[in-house]
Amino acid sequence: MYVLIFLFTPTTLATTRPMQNNKPPLPQAASKALIESISAFPHFTKEEVIASTPRNNEEWRNYVHARNSEQKKKIKKMKKELNVDVELMNINDVVVRKLTPKMITPEFEDKVYLDIHGGAFVLFGGLPSIEEGLLVAERLGIVVYSVDYRMPPTFPFPAALNDVVAVYNALLDQAGKGNVFVGGTSAGGSLVLSLVQSLITSKSPLPKAVYAGTPWADLTKTSDSLYINEGIDGVLVTYDGTLEAAAKLYAGKIALTDSAISPLYGSFEAFPPTLLVTGTRDMFLSDTVRVSRAIRDSGGVAQIEIFEGLSHAEYLIFYKTPESETTYRTMKSFFLSAN
Amino acid sequence: MYVLIFLFTPTTLATTRPMQNNKPPLPQAASKALIESISAFPHFTKEEVIASTPRNNEEWRNYVHARNSEQKKKIKKMKKELNVDVELMNINDVVVRKLTPKMITPEFEDKVYLDIHGGAFVLFGGLPSIEEGLLVAERLGIVVYSVDYRMPPTFPFPAALNDVVAVYNALLDQAGKGNVFVGGTSAGGSLVLSLVQSLITSKSPLPKAVYAGTPWADLTKTSDSLYINEGIDGVLVTYDGTLEAAAKLYAGKIALTDSAISPLYGSFEAFPPTLLVTGTRDMFLSDTVRVSRAIRDSGGVAQIEIFEGLSHAEYLIFYKTPESETTYRTMKSFFLSAN
Repeated sequence: MYVLIFLFTPTTLATTRPMQNNKPPLPQAASKALIESISAFPHFTKEEVIASTPRNNEEWRNYVHARNSEQKKKIKKMKKELNVDVELMNINDVVVRKLTPKMITPEFEDKVYLDIHGGAFVLFGGLPSIEEGLLVAERLGIVVYSVDYRMPPTFPFPAALNDVVAVYNALLDQAGKGNVFVGGTSAGGSLVLSLVQSLITSKSPLPKAVYAGTPWADLTKTSDSLYINEGIDGVLVTYDGTLEAAAKLYAGKIALTDSAISPLYGSFEAFPPTLLVTGTRDMFLSDTVRVSRAIRDSGGVAQIEIFEGLSHAEYLIFYKTPESETTYRTMKSFFLSAN
Repeated sequence: MYVLIFLFTPTTLATTRPMQNNKPPLPQAASKALIESISAFPHFTKEEVIASTPRNNEEWRNYVHARNSEQKKKIKKMKKELNVDVELMNINDVVVRKLTPKMITPEFEDKVYLDIHGGAFVLFGGLPSIEEGLLVAERLGIVVYSVDYRMPPTFPFPAALNDVVAVYNALLDQAGKGNVFVGGTSAGGSLVLSLVQSLITSKSPLPKAVYAGTPWADLTKTSDSLYINEGIDGVLVTYDGTLEAAAKLYAGKIALTDSAISPLYGSFEAFPPTLLVTGTRDMFLSDTVRVSRAIRDSGGVAQIEIFEGLSHAEYLIFYKTPESETTYRTMKSFFLSAN
């Protein structure tokens, strides 16, 4: 009887992989700057992440407030460092920040970039929404519009997607067909894919090219790297805590396998050229790989950049690393060569 | 004092990752055929691999003989299934097998493909050397020459590379500049990269395009996925046993960090268009990623194909999976579009 229980009960067993103090060894072949950034970044165990997961709307609001306050400090520091002008505005009733760099790349003079921030569909509203937009504006030399889309617990799906579609349509009217790029990281990358799928369905003009950085394209616990890189990815750590709770909070009454929630269950036919970025330690490595396969298998163009030893979105979080510089330099070339 | 020892001694600690009976869970989003192949493949632990590692030349010869005998059965079965004619010959004193498919793709009529087999630089001499060559010949519709290069323990470095260079030069003379493709998997992928580096150094005409499938491009224990995917990669399992011993056997008196042994320590300037293939569970995922970065950072073209839940070289080992079909279909398009 004990044997049967052992065989059929999912158990957590030790692996033989080398771990020191429950942390994986540092990635020796990553850049020196990335290794230093990883070393300095706080390390959380799976148990700690699960224990800190909000359990109700009030806990969510406190959690979001605390994380956003921390993030605001980083954004204020970045704003001082980068030559980008930030202008708060309303577009089609959605809060948007227009980011204008000092130097515009000549080929991007008539172009705009719609930036969709990440944060597991709940974090980084307000000023924190411009984190990646600032880097894109400065490093590509392009005018960026960062959407401050509505989020749960107050506004679950489809509020975020509706806001993104509304701003995209306004930018399309303003800049004209073939002049809009769209991009985002993590939950933002997922919303990029959902936006494109909804534009294809409604036969609307598509972005000239899109960027989906380590997109959270499947909100269920299906992708292999959610298992393999659990406890290895220093940013996400585990699916079983905040990620799973955030997915359910965002989806509300819709199933996580609905293609409007998880674009990997939708179609990738007729996608515009798509740049994907991930790392070997990324818990969304599999989501990114699956999106690249889906686009290529549908006859589209997907370019995938993978960085050695890089966890989820670290090319954005550690923006002073060569991995970060390479990401946005590649994005610039990718957009310049798109047609 | 105990605390100090605990902090500074490298220890193998349990991770929190979910493992059942010491095996990682099956990759749910891989193809059905790949999942079935993984399930049916024998599972070895790190300890078993280390225990079976040959300790001297006699043990190596027995190990190689046993593995090759097993592999020969697979090749004979593949030969019956595929419409490929196999002709044994000598080219510049090197044993080569010319593989001619029934159907030649019109664009490949004047082209040849030099195939460099894998097997950790010690395995798969003789008939087993044509495993990937058979698939390339049949699926691309191209004439393939598989090099049966010399190997340790009798012939350590540089015998293998010398043989590959000798056959490349003969094919170049025969087919003419711009008509030779080169490719290989694992140790074969590494030899592809070493061949190209040596051709660039000697200012010889380069292949039109190359394919390096999950190349063993750094023979030291540096790449992050050697640590992260240890015990996860069902094919390689661990670096610490046969892999490390084979690396040292091949290198002989040369350091593993010598660029002639580990092409990742050499230059990737002026590389021809390069197709790379790997999987999310591959212990050489990092080697593959680092090669793609090195080529792109040097201004070259590297296309990287990554498969969900795929361990080292499984696109070749499990040749009836969609992952395998996609690999060689992609190689065909890549070669057709190279110029």
